[in-house]
Amino acid sequence: MQIRDAAESDWPAMWAFMRPIVEAAETYPWAPDTPEDWVHAYWMERPAPASRLVAELDGQVAGTVEIHPNLPGQGSHVANAGFMVDPAFGRRGVGRALGEAALARAKADGFYAMQFNAVVATNTHAVKLWHSLGMSTLALIPGGFDHPKDGLVDMHLMFRVL
Amino acid sequence: MQIRDAAESDWPAMWAFMRPIVEAAETYPWAPDTPEDWVHAYWMERPAPASRLVAELDGQVAGTVEIHPNLPGQGSHVANAGFMVDPAFGRRGVGRALGEAALARAKADGFYAMQFNAVVATNTHAVKLWHSLGMSTLALIPGGFDHPKDGLVDMHLMFRVL
Repeated sequence: MQIRDAAESDWPAMWAFMRPIVEAAETYPWAPDTPEDWVHAYWMERPAPASRLVAELDGQVAGTVEIHPNLPGQGSHVANAGFMVDPAFGRRGVGRALGEAALARAKADGFYAMQFNAVVATNTHAVKLWHSLGMSTLALIPGGFDHPKDGLVDMHLMFRVL
Repeated sequence: MQIRDAAESDWPAMWAFMRPIVEAAETYPWAPDTPEDWVHAYWMERPAPASRLVAELDGQVAGTVEIHPNLPGQGSHVANAGFMVDPAFGRRGVGRALGEAALARAKADGFYAMQFNAVVATNTHAVKLWHSLGMSTLALIPGGFDHPKDGLVDMHLMFRVL
């Protein structure tokens, strides 16, 4: 597996697996009809210290992470990150590799800590994975996510110093 | 004290006390040099169900609150709010009145809950006030706020169902 910075030319391959994840609306607090240009701006266009990586497997983009300051100004020393992995490349360690790379990149870029604001509790694979990478659940936000199938479910707020 | 919807014509009076609060950068995770047009867009321009109120005392705008969805899409049933009170009208219950009004407005507008993401722990007056209005601290985010005088201080994540 190769982890490298995402290039604009990766976007069509990225959006191909990101779009169904957005449309399912089961893991991101975004509307299912969130337009491609909004996601592109969120993921690809934010200035440094924001960054984005892709994982390549078998010569294909298998997953991606974007990293950005969680808050402006006096909160900008804490990073936030978003991950999406192509289900076609599931169970091959793509999420773990991207998680490790994101923590390393955030630290290298001078961030003090990493915070995830909205890890959906029903996304148990992600919850376990982030815990195994040293992210701690500081809070469960009760009913913070309106799951299309399960209704109001909790969200984990996770944090770790880098 | 009168609590009413903010009008665009209130902005100069609002910005007069908001600007020093932004510049102090002790209570908001915004850079001290955050431009007026950014704050105006944040506070005044977001579409419904976002809203903003002012408190009037002695015929003057003494404080304001803005309310907006904390997250897009599947997280948009939870509100977030920001408050600023003119220190010249301190100790007269403006913050409490705005807090009560914000909770009532958010409920009336159909929000399920209210979440505050970044109540700076050194802002002890705000911490006590929000607790007294039924907001619970779900987590302390360690060192989440880079205070200009005190360095890294904790932030409260607060939440209550409406």
